[in-house]
Formats: sequence, C-alpha cells, structure tokens
Amino acid sequence: MFEYHITATQGRARTGVFHTPHGDLETPVFAPVGTQATVKTLTPEHLKGLGASLVLSNTYHLYLRPGDELVRDLGGLHAFMQWPGPMLTDSGGFQVFSLAETRKIDDDGVTFKSHIDGSMHRFTPEKSIQIQENLGADIIMAFDECSDPNDHAYTVKAMERTHRWAERSLAAHTRPDQALFGIVQGGVNPDLRTASAKFISSLPFPGIAIGGLSVGETKAEMHDTLDIVTPLLPEDKPRYLMGVGTPEDLINGVARGVDIFDCVLPTRLARHNAAFSPEGRLNLMNATFARDKRPIDETCDCYTCHTFTRAYLRHLIVAKELLAGTLLSIHNLRALIRLMETMRAAIHDGSFESRVPDLLAQWQGNAERVSNTMDTK
Amino acid sequence: MFEYHITATQGRARTGVFHTPHGDLETPVFAPVGTQATVKTLTPEHLKGLGASLVLSNTYHLYLRPGDELVRDLGGLHAFMQWPGPMLTDSGGFQVFSLAETRKIDDDGVTFKSHIDGSMHRFTPEKSIQIQENLGADIIMAFDECSDPNDHAYTVKAMERTHRWAERSLAAHTRPDQALFGIVQGGVNPDLRTASAKFISSLPFPGIAIGGLSVGETKAEMHDTLDIVTPLLPEDKPRYLMGVGTPEDLINGVARGVDIFDCVLPTRLARHNAAFSPEGRLNLMNATFARDKRPIDETCDCYTCHTFTRAYLRHLIVAKELLAGTLLSIHNLRALIRLMETMRAAIHDGSFESRVPDLLAQWQGNAERVSNTMDTK
Repeated sequence: MFEYHITATQGRARTGVFHTPHGDLETPVFAPVGTQATVKTLTPEHLKGLGASLVLSNTYHLYLRPGDELVRDLGGLHAFMQWPGPMLTDSGGFQVFSLAETRKIDDDGVTFKSHIDGSMHRFTPEKSIQIQENLGADIIMAFDECSDPNDHAYTVKAMERTHRWAERSLAAHTRPDQALFGIVQGGVNPDLRTASAKFISSLPFPGIAIGGLSVGETKAEMHDTLDIVTPLLPEDKPRYLMGVGTPEDLINGVARGVDIFDCVLPTRLARHNAAFSPEGRLNLMNATFARDKRPIDETCDCYTCHTFTRAYLRHLIVAKELLAGTLLSIHNLRALIRLMETMRAAIHDGSFESRVPDLLAQWQGNAERVSNTMDTK
Repeated sequence: MFEYHITATQGRARTGVFHTPHGDLETPVFAPVGTQATVKTLTPEHLKGLGASLVLSNTYHLYLRPGDELVRDLGGLHAFMQWPGPMLTDSGGFQVFSLAETRKIDDDGVTFKSHIDGSMHRFTPEKSIQIQENLGADIIMAFDECSDPNDHAYTVKAMERTHRWAERSLAAHTRPDQALFGIVQGGVNPDLRTASAKFISSLPFPGIAIGGLSVGETKAEMHDTLDIVTPLLPEDKPRYLMGVGTPEDLINGVARGVDIFDCVLPTRLARHNAAFSPEGRLNLMNATFARDKRPIDETCDCYTCHTFTRAYLRHLIVAKELLAGTLLSIHNLRALIRLMETMRAAIHDGSFESRVPDLLAQWQGNAERVSNTMDTK
C-alpha cells in the first residue's frame, strides 16, 4: 500500500503511480475540490465522465457539517458521497486560519469559532487526525500552520510549530489504510524552506505536501520556493502542492517535480460564467456569444463541448439557469485534467521540456490566481 | 406523421402511440417542463436516464429570452437545448395572463409588458404560431385565453375568443412537421365545456388540449369537467391536460381518458427539498433524516435512489449545495414517469381499473397542487 512508482522522468518532471486502497493514481494529477463532500453542481457520474481520479474534501467543513462521526457512521467519505476513487482530506488547519470567525493559536493547537453558527471548537494535531480517520480519505494531512509569507518572525514560529505538529500527527495516526502526508512550510524564505523540507523529509511520511504557497506571494516567489524545496524531497515519495492552481501554475509545478495539485479555480470560475479556452478565458455572459454556434473549445472532448453551443450556454447564464454552472464546471475541470494528461504523455515520450513554452503560451491569459480558500462562494 | 394509434383501453383509460418527427410517444405520458429550454438543473443525459420522452418548453419565456428567431437560427429548440426526443411548446397565452406585468386583451390579441425588462410586446394567434414555428417543437398549441373559472361572464367571453383564435391559429400554421393542438376552455361550467369540446373537436386539429384546469378550481370540479369533456373528444386524437399535475391528478386524469400531462411540480418540489415517496412527501431538510441510510424510495430505480442515502441528501440541503436540487429533480421526475409506466402496463394487462384505488392510496399525501405558472421560482 502507498507505494509510489516513478514511470518516467524528464528534467525534474516525473510521472508515476501511487497505489491507494481506492485505486491507483497516475501522477501528475489534478484533484477537483469537493469542499462539503460534493464537487459543486456535479454528480459522481460527471466526475467519472471527465476523467477525475483524486477528489479532495475539506476537514474543517465536514467536521462542522455534517460532522465527522456522522460521516464515519455512514461508512466514511467514499460511501457518503459515493466517490469510488482515491480521496484526500486536508488537515483543517488552513481553513481555521482563513475562515473561522476568531481563532487563538497556541503551541498545543487552535481554538476557533465556527463561521456557520459561532460555536467554539478546538483543533489539535491529534484532533485533526482523529477527524480525518473518521472521514476515511486515502490521503490525509498532518496538522500545520500556514503563515503570512511577509511576516518573517511569525513564519519562523509557524514553521517550528508545524514541525512539532507533524511529529504529533504521525504519533496520533492509527489507520494503516490511510497515507499521512507531512507538510513543508517556511513562507518564501529560502533558509526556512530548506530547513522545513529537510525536517519533514526526515520523518516517515509516505508523501510530502508543500503548503503556504498561492497565499499572496508572487509567481516568481512560488517558482523559487519550489526550486528550493522539491530537490530536497525524497524521489520515491509523491509531492503535493496544496491549493494550486492556475493552468500556468500546474505547468510550472510539474516542471519542478510536483505530482499532485488541487484548486477550487475551475469550479469557482464556472459559477462566475468563465470558461477556459484556447482563446483565453471566456466570459460567457458576454453578448458576443449570443449567436456563437461553436463549443467553448473545439479541441475539448468534454460533454459540454461535445453537446452545447456557446450561444446556449450564454442563454442559460443570462436566464440564471443553474445548469450553466454544471456545464461550465464539467468543461473547466476536464480542461485541467486534460492538461495533466497531456503533460503525463509528454513526460513519457520525452517531449515535455520542449513543449513547456508552447503549453505556457497556450494557457496564458486563462486564469489569474484565486485566493486559496474554500469553494463555497 | 402525427397518427395516433390506440394500443389498449380499459374503461375510459387508454394507451397509445403518437408518432412525431422526433420519435414515437407512448401515452399516457408525463412531460417534464423545461421553461427556459432547460429542465432546471438537469442535463439531457439526466432526462434520458430517467426515461423522459416528451419535454415541454414555454413560448412566452423563449420569445422574451433568448428570442425565438435566435433559437430558429441556432437550429430550433431540439438542437438548441440538445433534446433529441419529442417536444411541446405552449402558446404563450397562459403565461402572458399569469406573468406579464400588465396586459390588455382585445379580440385580436393581447398587449403586455415583459416581466424581465418592462418592454412592451403583443401576441396574436398569428404571432404565437409564428414564434412556435421558429422554436420548432413537434407539438404546438393554438393561442387561447384562460379565464378565472369563478367569473362566468368572463369565462363565456374568453371561451368564444379562444374559439376564434383556434381558427386563426389553424389558418396561420404552415409547418407540416408540427402538430397543432386546439384547446378546450369553458371554466368549470358544464354547458360551456360541452360547447367548447364540441367546437374544438370539429376543427381539423391532430390533438386536443384541455386548458383552464388546475387554476384554482377544486379537485371535484376538475374531475367533473374531465367527465364532461373527454367523452366528447374524438377517440383517435391524443388529449393533453395542460399544466396538471399532482400524482393523484395523473391517476384521475388517465382514468378519465387523458393521454398527455405536464407540470412543474416535480422540479419545483425538488428545489424546495421535497421528494415523492411511498411514505408520503418527504421534506429532506428535516433533522430526522440526518443519519437515515435508506434511499428516498427503496422501490425506485432512479440514479438518486440507487446511489445516495437520505442522510447525504439532507447534508447537501443543509449545506446549501446545488447538487441537492439536481438529485431530487431526478428522483421526483422519475417517480412520475414511473407512475405513468405503471399505469400504461396496467391498462395493457387489464388491471388498471382495479388498481386505481391502491394507486391513489399510495400517492395520497404526496403532493398538493402547485399553482399553474412558470417554473422559475
């Protein structure tokens, strides 16, 4: 269980297979986000149809609603939401810091107020692991603290706390059918990232996540940080860049040796009428599409592009029909999953490095960053 | 084209096949309503999966948005919304009377203000037919006037106008690939209904609709009216009871010789968290379902019931996830379509009349009436 086999490499990019109790994950992989045990507006059948493999869900949300013990009693997250493939949960830490109404962090954990009903709760590494064991995802995360990258003193403190919490998460973890990943922090400081990458790599995690990126730093800072971190990570463990990102970020991440990504961007853009396309990001509300008989992307193999015109999608948007969000979510997710398939094939056939400039040019202008929070707006 | 073959009868109930350019309709049939060229929250794949055959769309809405000429230029309604099966459009009259902000009726037509942007428009029988020819449904409706059944003088006037408009609709109709149905009016007055049924039956319509019911009259008045009207209609033409209804109404309608029904009830209930079930109508928001591992209906063959627990559906509702509306719409529509399948089979095997009491008992308490307006709330 949880063996990671590298199947091809080119430069620092690599393809591999990560074995999980719910099937093999081909990497690099992009995971759709199902914050509240549902990828917004899509059925599991839609997700299968668009080629999703790994699906993420959020510990903070599920702990508050419907409750992790309820999910456990209903057979765990896979049975609850009827996703048969691999799943991943985050630790809840990031969302406590970004969503909870008030929060008080100490060395033992964090006390916070629910954004739903104002009730008080406390997460510790042990509590986060217990919740994630109740939820039952295949890949779970150590409890960590993500800091403001521009506050050096706080970044040092949060990184050190993340390291202690990583050890406590490991000690608390009991389910052998779940892969617990450690998380590298350290903001955008090269020395801190080096120290964190080395420390987390020294612990017996079957995979390693890179946290604290796409939280306000520049693209150059993200790339520089990845250039420091990934070479320090063990080759034989999958690397997960949390909450990233745009199509450009995926290409740059794969080129720097990242294996797993997740982001709310495709589904959030869909709910704001935007679609990825070779012409750049389209806002389908625009009157220019009123009589456009083309699909969003003539090269796309998704249900939406095979079935509907831009004119129809625009009509649904203008008429405020919810089906628009469903159809755009299918397309946007398929676009990123197809990008990952393209990159995997290119790494296999040795053309990846030469294709990176073209891929970046093709995807330029498709998506600015999205702030790295939950997918509920 | 548009031949109607009766395949079995029992009492006044009958099964048949109505041939349309987009396939054969087995009757009695229940048509999901796709007001704005979409059955709310469902893809055409969902509709196929739940056994839909006939789909209705609304002329008033499509005329205003996106415009019937746009729909025509994009290949007609079937191509626009990608529904490959038979379709039906109403005449727009009922919705002008129920939705438009202001309306002024004269013998030639009706002038009204759009509920969307306040712009002024005019419908006449000729205009309604022209719009419906642009939309291109298989079954279209004569322009009619629906009156308040409690206002006798107005009901007389509206019925007479409906008769003149029926003749003008017939004269205006040019597309041989569309079946134009006449509409019987006359409120709940036996003499008026008799006169109207005879008059409309005398015109060369390939099918006949019964309008002006489920608009505030009692169930007994609806039944009495059907008891007067259907025996006066030609046996060899399909009968369509417009905007009806609840499961009970469908059973009572089939027993009285009705062949076609449509109603927004299943999808509207879905958006209000309600599901048809053998236990009566369930409000899945209710806390009692929080840990209920059963499907909505253990006897139902729909995707929702085959896949998800009540507990999961309740979670989606409480968490305000739109997927709840999709999954409940699939179930509620499938429930009514399955009821029609059950009734067709029972008419074929001769058990229909003896099963009516059981069917009524089974469906009792599942659904009050829904006011007969558009499906946009």
